Amino acid sequence: MGYLTHTPPGYSFDGMEHVVDTETHGGPPYGYSSNKEAYLRRLKRIEGQVRGIARMVEEDKYCIDILTQMSAVTKALHAVSLGLVEEHIGHCVVGAANEPDPAKRAGEIDAKVKEASDAIGRLLR
Amino acid sequence: MGYLTHTPPGYSFDGMEHVVDTETHGGPPYGYSSNKEAYLRRLKRIEGQVRGIARMVEEDKYCIDILTQMSAVTKALHAVSLGLVEEHIGHCVVGAANEPDPAKRAGEIDAKVKEASDAIGRLLR
Amino acid sequence: MGYLTHTPPGYSFDGMEHVVDTETHGGPPYGYSSNKEAYLRRLKRIEGQVRGIARMVEEDKYCIDILTQMSAVTKALHAVSLGLVEEHIGHCVVGAANEPDPAKRAGEIDAKVKEASDAIGRLLR
Amino acid sequence: MGYLTHTPPGYSFDGMEHVVDTETHGGPPYGYSSNKEAYLRRLKRIEGQVRGIARMVEEDKYCIDILTQMSAVTKALHAVSLGLVEEHIGHCVVGAANEPDPAKRAGEIDAKVKEASDAIGRLLR
Repeated sequence: MGYLTHTPPGYSFDGMEHVVDTETHGGPPYGYSSNKEAYLRRLKRIEGQVRGIARMVEEDKYCIDILTQMSAVTKALHAVSLGLVEEHIGHCVVGAANEPDPAKRAGEIDAKVKEASDAIGRLLR
Repeated sequence: MGYLTHTPPGYSFDGMEHVVDTETHGGPPYGYSSNKEAYLRRLKRIEGQVRGIARMVEEDKYCIDILTQMSAVTKALHAVSLGLVEEHIGHCVVGAANEPDPAKRAGEIDAKVKEASDAIGRLLR
Repeated sequence: MGYLTHTPPGYSFDGMEHVVDTETHGGPPYGYSSNKEAYLRRLKRIEGQVRGIARMVEEDKYCIDILTQMSAVTKALHAVSLGLVEEHIGHCVVGAANEPDPAKRAGEIDAKVKEASDAIGRLLR
Repeated sequence: MGYLTHTPPGYSFDGMEHVVDTETHGGPPYGYSSNKEAYLRRLKRIEGQVRGIARMVEEDKYCIDILTQMSAVTKALHAVSLGLVEEHIGHCVVGAANEPDPAKRAGEIDAKVKEASDAIGRLLR
């Protein structure tokens, strides 16, 4: 995926060399931003699936068939979450690891790893 | 919750006293139907939450904040699924257990329990 | 699986007609009891898997390989839990549905369904 | 947690400065190794919990009580897995990010992030 190489021009995710012309375009601030359209499409589809489930309830469809669709939506949400976690690790954690100031680096890594771990913990619950 | 007592008039989920005027109203066919409005409201809210997440992606919000919302939606979906499972057990399984024909009863219970178990298995995966 | 038919002689899972000769044989008190040996074997295997993971940690195996084994154990535990849930539904819930005293029946069904639902909810979290 | 600072002497998790005296002591090869005793204790406890569940089955304890214990074990396993994921991110991913050879760095980061993401995906399923 090239977490280090896909950084858009004028932008550095280690937060250090922000020589960004904010007048014109700041560049995507987070890892997932480069896949933004894909994420939006997936969320749109999930929204449609939830609406489809509501329609099944409306039409008194069999509860087990509704549950099958519920599982599919939960799975689709998990896949999106997993993608976001992967981007967080690949961008935010790696970005912290590339922090040039050694005095700050360890603290930033810890903070980003802790955030990732907490987020994964919430997904597991 | 009174799975056996809340049966609407003219409808019996044990499949026994179907003196239903199907011309006018067939009665809710499944357990969840008596809570239909509540389920529709919850699904509507989940749909809104998914839309809210798409907006966060659109606005380049921090990935960890998006993940927090994703976990909340997953949790809300699980709660709805759990409600549906409970209704399936309370209505469909119990309905099968009340099947008066002993020759059919065991087979119907097995089928309904198997459906419940498969649905729960899909939720756990 | 024949939840209603496999009840051992002299035992009734609705808890009503306990005319059991406890001198000779009390009969399995819960649904899973008829598969007791299979459950014990599966739990024994899970115990061995956990011990195997400890050995991997002891021997400084690669964290990702340990995680793969952790997922396998979690999956095996889920399968056992799902089996127990299925037996609870097939025996305890169905047993409550067969409670002969109509005054008690609805309350017993509610209690057993609620227990099942709570247990599934704990598994989902 | 100090992922970069707690590296034991003579060991570098970026795989670069391996001036380790392998005759005497190689140093812990992975992140979790510094918490090895804690992990072993937790796995020991989980093993005991599984054995306790087997005992409950043996003694025909109520299925719902067994399920409660099953959920507790699953939760304990998840906590250990989460710890291992956190260490993988904090050590292996961060180690890859510190790979000094720029030609190798992106590839190593990708590999480690992918491993983390796959492992998390398996936990979510």
